[in-house]
Amino acid sequence: MSTATMLIYCPDEKGIILSVTNYISANNGNIVDLDQHVDSEQKIFFMRVEWTLSDFNVPRENIGTHFGSEVAQKYQMQYTVHFRDEKIRMALMVSKMDHCFNDILSRYKSGEWNVEIPLIISNHPEMEETANRFGIPYHYIPVSKQTKVEQEKKQLQLLSDNKIEFVVLARYMQILSENFIKDYSNPIINIHHSFLPAFPGAKPYHSAHERGVKIIGATSHYVTKDLDAGPIIEQSTANISHKDRVEDLVRKGRDIEKVVLSRAIWYHVNRRILSYGNRTIIFD
Amino acid sequence: MSTATMLIYCPDEKGIILSVTNYISANNGNIVDLDQHVDSEQKIFFMRVEWTLSDFNVPRENIGTHFGSEVAQKYQMQYTVHFRDEKIRMALMVSKMDHCFNDILSRYKSGEWNVEIPLIISNHPEMEETANRFGIPYHYIPVSKQTKVEQEKKQLQLLSDNKIEFVVLARYMQILSENFIKDYSNPIINIHHSFLPAFPGAKPYHSAHERGVKIIGATSHYVTKDLDAGPIIEQSTANISHKDRVEDLVRKGRDIEKVVLSRAIWYHVNRRILSYGNRTIIFD
Amino acid sequence: MSTATMLIYCPDEKGIILSVTNYISANNGNIVDLDQHVDSEQKIFFMRVEWTLSDFNVPRENIGTHFGSEVAQKYQMQYTVHFRDEKIRMALMVSKMDHCFNDILSRYKSGEWNVEIPLIISNHPEMEETANRFGIPYHYIPVSKQTKVEQEKKQLQLLSDNKIEFVVLARYMQILSENFIKDYSNPIINIHHSFLPAFPGAKPYHSAHERGVKIIGATSHYVTKDLDAGPIIEQSTANISHKDRVEDLVRKGRDIEKVVLSRAIWYHVNRRILSYGNRTIIFD
Amino acid sequence: MSTATMLIYCPDEKGIILSVTNYISANNGNIVDLDQHVDSEQKIFFMRVEWTLSDFNVPRENIGTHFGSEVAQKYQMQYTVHFRDEKIRMALMVSKMDHCFNDILSRYKSGEWNVEIPLIISNHPEMEETANRFGIPYHYIPVSKQTKVEQEKKQLQLLSDNKIEFVVLARYMQILSENFIKDYSNPIINIHHSFLPAFPGAKPYHSAHERGVKIIGATSHYVTKDLDAGPIIEQSTANISHKDRVEDLVRKGRDIEKVVLSRAIWYHVNRRILSYGNRTIIFD
Repeated sequence: MSTATMLIYCPDEKGIILSVTNYISANNGNIVDLDQHVDSEQKIFFMRVEWTLSDFNVPRENIGTHFGSEVAQKYQMQYTVHFRDEKIRMALMVSKMDHCFNDILSRYKSGEWNVEIPLIISNHPEMEETANRFGIPYHYIPVSKQTKVEQEKKQLQLLSDNKIEFVVLARYMQILSENFIKDYSNPIINIHHSFLPAFPGAKPYHSAHERGVKIIGATSHYVTKDLDAGPIIEQSTANISHKDRVEDLVRKGRDIEKVVLSRAIWYHVNRRILSYGNRTIIFD
Repeated sequence: MSTATMLIYCPDEKGIILSVTNYISANNGNIVDLDQHVDSEQKIFFMRVEWTLSDFNVPRENIGTHFGSEVAQKYQMQYTVHFRDEKIRMALMVSKMDHCFNDILSRYKSGEWNVEIPLIISNHPEMEETANRFGIPYHYIPVSKQTKVEQEKKQLQLLSDNKIEFVVLARYMQILSENFIKDYSNPIINIHHSFLPAFPGAKPYHSAHERGVKIIGATSHYVTKDLDAGPIIEQSTANISHKDRVEDLVRKGRDIEKVVLSRAIWYHVNRRILSYGNRTIIFD
Repeated sequence: MSTATMLIYCPDEKGIILSVTNYISANNGNIVDLDQHVDSEQKIFFMRVEWTLSDFNVPRENIGTHFGSEVAQKYQMQYTVHFRDEKIRMALMVSKMDHCFNDILSRYKSGEWNVEIPLIISNHPEMEETANRFGIPYHYIPVSKQTKVEQEKKQLQLLSDNKIEFVVLARYMQILSENFIKDYSNPIINIHHSFLPAFPGAKPYHSAHERGVKIIGATSHYVTKDLDAGPIIEQSTANISHKDRVEDLVRKGRDIEKVVLSRAIWYHVNRRILSYGNRTIIFD
Repeated sequence: MSTATMLIYCPDEKGIILSVTNYISANNGNIVDLDQHVDSEQKIFFMRVEWTLSDFNVPRENIGTHFGSEVAQKYQMQYTVHFRDEKIRMALMVSKMDHCFNDILSRYKSGEWNVEIPLIISNHPEMEETANRFGIPYHYIPVSKQTKVEQEKKQLQLLSDNKIEFVVLARYMQILSENFIKDYSNPIINIHHSFLPAFPGAKPYHSAHERGVKIIGATSHYVTKDLDAGPIIEQSTANISHKDRVEDLVRKGRDIEKVVLSRAIWYHVNRRILSYGNRTIIFD
């Protein structure tokens, strides 16, 4: 069953839900899911609505503009339209640590997400073999201080050539330059191995051990130009104790990282995230 | 700001959300919260909607019947209407264990819930002193096998005289008779000290210890005639280890029980629960 | 650095710790880890002690008997001796679901556990390809009611030929016969997709959905002749809501299953489990 | 059954466990609990050992010095001796928020901890009534910038007069001066309403909301002169969502704060904490 999903936000005012539901019903769509949220401080209205396409009067390629003139304009809505039967094109960027990488490829293969992974980019050669097994082109693009500008251009070209709709940094151990982030206009999801905002930057497990915390965590977030400061999608924590050395934190942390990153991907792929300011609305 | 909240369920079909939002808008209400759920297996539609009353055209005492004839009838809706500025009348039933009891009274006093507690019923005298401190009438009604029928009548009379809208069993160690449950038509919330359906009935911590589980839990649920088998509202668990003796489980369990019961009360008081069949929809 | 680990239990009495530590010190071992537990109800003493072998006076192959005559006999100890530098031989049994399988192989490859996996047994052919990729012999042994006795003999022969020290059922969807369990004298670890003792047997996610629980869980346990009733090693839970259909429980459950099973394997491989009666002591 | 508990740390070397257990056995004590930890980086040995006093040869008042000369000196041990049958004297400092305060008093009354609370100190008068109910002297000592030095002297005098062995800051909203912390040589336990090191200082729930985190937390720690930077005893987190306003975080956070603080008190009272450098060893 094919459906359309719309993610909407706009200044809050009376009658928005009515207008949207009215539009869908009037065009013979049947709403299968509707969730909304009002940020009452900032007076912003957020909505996710999904409806069946089978009898819908507006052809899918016209929905965007049609909804725009019929409804969105009136309320100054920002909105995007997505179709469940269209696979999203995702790229993976990895370095040497393979736990998130392996977990993602296993889920990919088992069809857990409605995505296509046309390429993997890495600054190390180690994971090429695994990529080959899954039949995914692997681009080894080493990055050094000197070559960064040039190499990022190659990366951006690859993302563009492959029409990548979002990038997942699966423990990619290079900081993307501001330029990269500006040039690549689609979302980039990162996994950071701490419960942000604690322990941003390098070696969070070492810092956690040093500080003597009793919980560790992981955070998936959209990448912005500010390191580890983008909108948070998902977080989780695990209990640790004084018995845990740094290497135990690394081991225990891997299990959280895998789950937190894969949940973020799931939300993103299922069009359940609205990012606004530095926050995310997760329609779960 | 006063609001009306409606909880609705009915067979799923096209146009329900539209009809409800239309009704509210047409009568000059502003929706402040809307959440819906479709049970796609059973084809049932569930909805919670809250709107402002300040400019609403229909007087609050007429909303029920007016909505009934205008909307509900058409869709065979079951629905209830509630008003945020009206305190709900809640009764507490307790025995000897005081952790949930104390926790509830502390929250009550601090105004965490929009409730009035006009009475406490107990089959033991121990907590009268605490009840007195909070200025709540305490009814000591001892129950034995022989006196159960008669004593339950007294209890029911008290609930009726005090117009009690829901009862909370805060570790009340008597099983209410089928008759009681049938006669008292309003909701009864219980806290059971296990993650149901594991370890129903008496002494769940002993059973948990005996079985050697690594987690314990607590479950709040609506009471039905089947012991510990009513619709579950909230559950939580905590990790334990082989070091924990039964008394440690009891100690650790108390902390879960308190939180799980108080969350259930919060959901209930805020009209966020729709109970259907043996399940609950929690609009959180 | 090579170490010996001893797991001990015996009737509790005075002086046991002293005797054990004395034995190790007297033979020039340095204790690097010691943990003990007393079941004060049953008056049983449990201990895990690990010490360095570099300067230890007793050759590793003699430690068992030497400790036996010097210490164990006096206290009627049950004990086992293990060496950290010796890889444990583990077999995997799988069916069609591959999430635990893939997760285990990824961890295996990355060296997370000190194990050797000389073979995989399955009643389905689907995972042979993956096994091949990891270079592990895959034995496809289909099982039907009629062939079960005979096929289990083959399985037992393989386990014996390969000197398998413990078996992991990674969502193996066949119930091992009482005979199998009796004949294979080494530990078998299973993952069950519920928080036991709730929902034993088949289709626990369906039962969980049916019952309307608000948490789901997973349990790893040693296999005994009683289905899903063996000593529990590890359990974990996750919150769910009314929005989750059975397929969502399956999806969310997979993430718990993977982690819970891998933790059980970690404990087992690191000789941190003492199983006694129907319970486990986990020296974490 | 009366027991002695010793908390010990010293440079790690061979034979420490043996010496301690030997000492206890030689003097006819029976070890009921022993736990040890080695910080292998810093080469420090930590131990908690508890033994029966009934037949112990050394009178309790002499154990400290006797053990000192017999064992501790040789290993340069830092150690403390405690007796389970001696109640610890605890003071409470509070301001206006009463959830931790009420929770602590309920647990105190139910005998959950082996403590005596001879006094409550507050910079506000609001909780005097509750203190009176529990029969605990309440000292209202308002603090302003101008009066802080003088008022802290009064507080210190009260703690000293009442032989207070540890202080609990149950959401006491004043920062204790460096002087206070230096002058009061016994432990002070604080509850901070965030998962430190994230969001130290004032208004952590506001900061958490602002940052858009998906989890909130609470941290209990020993107070040192560096604000919110002392050794962490216990932490816990709870999931939140975009729906939660600051006031929801406050409400949900209260439940974590209560549990985290009470667990810290439990560990402290049961002599299960060894604080070393800026970390704690929790013998649970």
